[in-house]
Amino acid sequence: MPRTMLDRFEQRKATRAKLIDAALDLFSSSGYDHATVDEISQAAGYSKGAYYFHFSTKDDILLELLRMWTEDRNVTLAGITEEARNPDGLQDSIASFFSYASSPRWPGVLLEFWAQAMRNQEVSKRLTEAYAVWRKQISEAFDVARSAGVIAQTVSDAADVVLAAHDGFAVRNAIGAPGAKAMSAADLAESLLQPLEVASVERRAIAQ
Amino acid sequence: MPRTMLDRFEQRKATRAKLIDAALDLFSSSGYDHATVDEISQAAGYSKGAYYFHFSTKDDILLELLRMWTEDRNVTLAGITEEARNPDGLQDSIASFFSYASSPRWPGVLLEFWAQAMRNQEVSKRLTEAYAVWRKQISEAFDVARSAGVIAQTVSDAADVVLAAHDGFAVRNAIGAPGAKAMSAADLAESLLQPLEVASVERRAIAQ
Repeated sequence: MPRTMLDRFEQRKATRAKLIDAALDLFSSSGYDHATVDEISQAAGYSKGAYYFHFSTKDDILLELLRMWTEDRNVTLAGITEEARNPDGLQDSIASFFSYASSPRWPGVLLEFWAQAMRNQEVSKRLTEAYAVWRKQISEAFDVARSAGVIAQTVSDAADVVLAAHDGFAVRNAIGAPGAKAMSAADLAESLLQPLEVASVERRAIAQ
Repeated sequence: MPRTMLDRFEQRKATRAKLIDAALDLFSSSGYDHATVDEISQAAGYSKGAYYFHFSTKDDILLELLRMWTEDRNVTLAGITEEARNPDGLQDSIASFFSYASSPRWPGVLLEFWAQAMRNQEVSKRLTEAYAVWRKQISEAFDVARSAGVIAQTVSDAADVVLAAHDGFAVRNAIGAPGAKAMSAADLAESLLQPLEVASVERRAIAQ
């Protein structure tokens, strides 16, 4: 029985997803430079031909992973400005932004994005764009939180601290150095924001 | 004229230093996995034989760089507990710990340490040990600062935030994403500590 066009479409989508999943595994375990297109195809259960049907180069699949990651973090930050109207909301949003609990293979791949950014202009450009968007969103949220009396600080500096903490927390998760197990994303967000809140609560206490 | 033993000793030291310097360059520009012993030797102006006189493997020189880095950061943190007796001292010490202004090639090599830690047990072990030492030192400094009325927070959580910020700041420096130019190590340290100080000053104001 001849396959329909729809079957073929669905199968191609499944093949592509399996190739991406295999690349995610291999890049975080062997490293991007070590992993080959052969290995990715084999791990996914396909031929090199299947790989080149979906991607032109090895870089291509790295850029696809980068796109998936930035989109995923965009989703976690989507409501942050609205959430920032109450202190717990801001903290929860930042904790979600830090967290890779439901996608534990990703922190290792972030190390690969960063290393490749040093020698691949396209990776560098896309990372820079993503961080700029997040910095703006987090700054806006801090700005809203500040006007709600939650924090007092330069909002873009506060956003930079959050971004640095995100990356550092990912490093800790990837390499498993002390703190990774001890400190959850929620703890980190709380430790960053709690003193800001204390300052604000006490400022209001003085004002009363 | 035959060379003396001392001449030979000095020359060996110089050769070793040049090989290490070439490795630092290559690991941060091409990445650890891409760089070869041949390239390191050639960049230093020596034969592969000279390399193997000083190091057994490529890993060996990575571990030497890791040792140099952890020792350098140990030095920047050496006086932190003493410095923590005044707020500016604590902030300055943490800013020094964050800063790679005088050694701009290092943040890129940190990315390589972290990536290798995922597949090299020795790198992972040594990184874990180094972070544990720094975490202890920074926690102690925060503890001293707290008893001096400077901050209020779980000291080990505060130390974890500092370590995460260090790594994230290094990422930003290495890949040049937004924030790297805008924010200096001193700004980052101030943004982390300022709200803590504000909280404490206001707490004392209430107590009076």
